[in-house]
Amino acid sequence: MLINGQPGDSIDASDRGLAYGDGLYRTLEAHYGQPLLWRWQWQRLAADCASLHLPCPDEALLLAEIAQVAGTLPRAVVKIVLTRGSGQRGYAMPATCTATRIVSATAWGGYPAERAEHGVAVRWCDTRLAIQPLLAGIKHLNRLENVFARSEWHDPAIAEGLMLDMDGTVVEGTMSNLFIVRGGELFTPLLDRCGVSGAMRACVLQLAANLGIPVREVRLQPEDVLAADEAFVCNSLAGIWPLRQLDGRQWLAWPLTRRLQQALLTICCASAIRR
Amino acid sequence: MLINGQPGDSIDASDRGLAYGDGLYRTLEAHYGQPLLWRWQWQRLAADCASLHLPCPDEALLLAEIAQVAGTLPRAVVKIVLTRGSGQRGYAMPATCTATRIVSATAWGGYPAERAEHGVAVRWCDTRLAIQPLLAGIKHLNRLENVFARSEWHDPAIAEGLMLDMDGTVVEGTMSNLFIVRGGELFTPLLDRCGVSGAMRACVLQLAANLGIPVREVRLQPEDVLAADEAFVCNSLAGIWPLRQLDGRQWLAWPLTRRLQQALLTICCASAIRR
Repeated sequence: MLINGQPGDSIDASDRGLAYGDGLYRTLEAHYGQPLLWRWQWQRLAADCASLHLPCPDEALLLAEIAQVAGTLPRAVVKIVLTRGSGQRGYAMPATCTATRIVSATAWGGYPAERAEHGVAVRWCDTRLAIQPLLAGIKHLNRLENVFARSEWHDPAIAEGLMLDMDGTVVEGTMSNLFIVRGGELFTPLLDRCGVSGAMRACVLQLAANLGIPVREVRLQPEDVLAADEAFVCNSLAGIWPLRQLDGRQWLAWPLTRRLQQALLTICCASAIRR
Repeated sequence: MLINGQPGDSIDASDRGLAYGDGLYRTLEAHYGQPLLWRWQWQRLAADCASLHLPCPDEALLLAEIAQVAGTLPRAVVKIVLTRGSGQRGYAMPATCTATRIVSATAWGGYPAERAEHGVAVRWCDTRLAIQPLLAGIKHLNRLENVFARSEWHDPAIAEGLMLDMDGTVVEGTMSNLFIVRGGELFTPLLDRCGVSGAMRACVLQLAANLGIPVREVRLQPEDVLAADEAFVCNSLAGIWPLRQLDGRQWLAWPLTRRLQQALLTICCASAIRR
């Protein structure tokens, strides 16, 4: 783990990341220190820095730090955390901010392959996402809703929980974004009121465009998901997991999802080779 | 500063308090290590622990730690932070949780006395509070809304900003609770959908009861505040600040607020002497 570029494992207890969740993070996969799908990770990181008025670190510096912490690991989870650093007491953003940058890596064997192959069982969460356009899409450090949602079940057969917002609209999974397929088109929830706009979501949107698959960002109702021809959740560590089971509904084939999985595999390999 | 009872100034960078804002805090005033209005602080702390499913620390232990960090300071701000500690990756609350407990003190001269004497100018914030009943009232570590709201103005003549929720209902100040007076009665926003239920708010409710002043928790509209006979904001460090100016409205006398300030002074003195 590197804290502002120095080896370490602790941060100042007065850091605003702890005090207020005043910061953001990203989680990604790296092979021997090479981050997968970096282009989308970086785009989302930079966008979130802008939204939070946080200084964005230099891209080359981040890549060097990822290489440093994960370089010896064949497969690692890398986590980047950026906070507004330590400041005077009080909520106001300091006029000058010395951000805290944490880059860490953990060896990781990946999720069980059958999730991507045979699909996953998911559930509806009772925990609702509050509607807050100001913070919508940002992968910020205010994640208590996700903590409560993910704590609703302990059954390891359930891979993910889907969350609705306060209006009952479907938004995302607790740690993933959601897509559905209907009539050969892709639909994914608009994230203008809440939810996290994940790097893998951005990548899937690009893959769909490359494949000529129409995609629309819309407000989805739970019945839209249940009526879908196919559905999947995705994130940077999981890749794409087809939905096999939800609330009595079963899906057994995912032809369009398979095309996206294949395209993702291709782009990941290209990304790994190119770097 | 004490971290889990040991002198220190840093925490594990993998703490869930940093990762997810998974914890809570309290800020209070102490004189030579004796916390003011501890009864209300403790009640709120214990309630928030229960709401977040966090183990509540022993009261005597906390008091001893406050005495240890602030014992030599005539007047101090004490901050208590409790988090769900470090755990395995992922949002789910760990089955067994070793909480992180941070108790720190800073010498502090108090706010300028004229704020309580002559009242304060406040403003409306544009930043709205999201409606999230699950977290309403809790002084948790997910405070980005407060950070954005408090960053809206830099004019030191404005002491506080008042926040509305997504429905336009008045909830609180960025760092305080709000009360208004109308026809000899006190009204304060219901905090069942968002907002922080402060220790000073609880204390004021008790003081009003002691004085035989009727109080109601209601949904207040901005026009209710502007039409009020008196209004004040309060928190554990500020005490009670009468509103002098808001959005063109001026208040010049605060007879009922003065009675509450007097009662607060009495109870603080009694509390300081008794301990």
